Amino acid sequence: MTTARDALFKKLAAELGIDHAEEVKAVPRYEVAVEHEGELYVSGMIPRVRGAVAVTGSVGADVSLEEGRHAARLCVLRALAVVRQTVGTLDRVKRILRMTVYVKSAANFTEQSEVADAASDILYTVFQPSGGHTRTSIGVLQLPKNAAVEIDMIVALGEREAGTSTF
Amino acid sequence: MTTARDALFKKLAAELGIDHAEEVKAVPRYEVAVEHEGELYVSGMIPRVRGAVAVTGSVGADVSLEEGRHAARLCVLRALAVVRQTVGTLDRVKRILRMTVYVKSAANFTEQSEVADAASDILYTVFQPSGGHTRTSIGVLQLPKNAAVEIDMIVALGEREAGTSTF
Amino acid sequence: MTTARDALFKKLAAELGIDHAEEVKAVPRYEVAVEHEGELYVSGMIPRVRGAVAVTGSVGADVSLEEGRHAARLCVLRALAVVRQTVGTLDRVKRILRMTVYVKSAANFTEQSEVADAASDILYTVFQPSGGHTRTSIGVLQLPKNAAVEIDMIVALGEREAGTSTF
Repeated sequence: MTTARDALFKKLAAELGIDHAEEVKAVPRYEVAVEHEGELYVSGMIPRVRGAVAVTGSVGADVSLEEGRHAARLCVLRALAVVRQTVGTLDRVKRILRMTVYVKSAANFTEQSEVADAASDILYTVFQPSGGHTRTSIGVLQLPKNAAVEIDMIVALGEREAGTSTF
Repeated sequence: MTTARDALFKKLAAELGIDHAEEVKAVPRYEVAVEHEGELYVSGMIPRVRGAVAVTGSVGADVSLEEGRHAARLCVLRALAVVRQTVGTLDRVKRILRMTVYVKSAANFTEQSEVADAASDILYTVFQPSGGHTRTSIGVLQLPKNAAVEIDMIVALGEREAGTSTF
Repeated sequence: MTTARDALFKKLAAELGIDHAEEVKAVPRYEVAVEHEGELYVSGMIPRVRGAVAVTGSVGADVSLEEGRHAARLCVLRALAVVRQTVGTLDRVKRILRMTVYVKSAANFTEQSEVADAASDILYTVFQPSGGHTRTSIGVLQLPKNAAVEIDMIVALGEREAGTSTF
């Protein structure tokens, strides 16, 4: 089954060199997602591609703004891959309630919003016309594995959204 | 319509030099708030006043503790302005479930709780006697636009609370 | 009343030198927990033991990885103590929906996940077989009172879980 949203997700993943069918493995000590009463909590995702962290370092120093934005796209697509593997299709997403974007930042780098915008643009593209979401972006000193960006989410789920499926 | 809570909000906003009627604009790439099943998620708010960030820099270095507390008040009032413009009146607030307070900190500054207290005091003043809320305060390296403080919230909504309206 | 989960909690607390019966005091300006519609929000907990912060400093510099992991265990047990004092027994926990682990980090320390794993292990031990949870771990510049770790949580509550009580 491929729906409009799922197709868009696959297209964006392909453009970024991500294998959309690769499972985001449950790690030994926590879950990548937990569903509860119509909400899906997604764990913090770093820009892993095929097991390696694709973008490491501080945005504004060893990582450029554009590379930071690329990292944000990888994180958000990974979060959407987790949603798909957990609930089957992106058509079950009603709204992204919260996206928190942690940007590993150089001390004088203040464009965390511009990094996060790249992830927000993905949400608008995939979930149009209901891609609106709340967001917090902050600049942190470090992230696991020296990742440049980490993104987590809380997602509202529903039954399959009308009008978005193509099957 | 003015209720006790809304009047308190307006009074505090005036004291801090904020135009309470100024809309917090939806930015191009995300929403300032999303309502879902009785919960309102509010995006991270920085201390903007009339479009400019009023307090910038690291608390404990270029920004004093008292200026940091002022920034926290501006952030929380901005968050409450978002609640009002989204649901009409602060009387629909049942509880503030979570307030996260990010404080851009000097490396040796450890009074993040004291900064966050200024925001908590506002919540107690406006929502008495149900101003109790959970809180996390942390010290971060950077925030968007070099803001000294950023605050986001998850709010529980209900029907109009009894006993708080004056109309 | 002692259940299997509560007994495990007490055992782990004793091993870490924590007085499990000591109440986590509501602070003047916010609540340690707020319950709403089957969810319990727990405020950010630092590794306090009998009123003092037991582990301070930056993990990777003045605090070793193992000391950081110890701090994470103290934080998560304190969060579970808050759950117990708020709802009576850990048997009412259905799932830990989200745990966010803030690690005060040296600039080049990238093992935030390994610090957080120590807290996750506690959740698996206490809530087996339903200890799975989502998690975000990040490295921050500072935390209140110079704490090495801070942890907050969102918990799904239910009626008493079947099969976990021993009374």
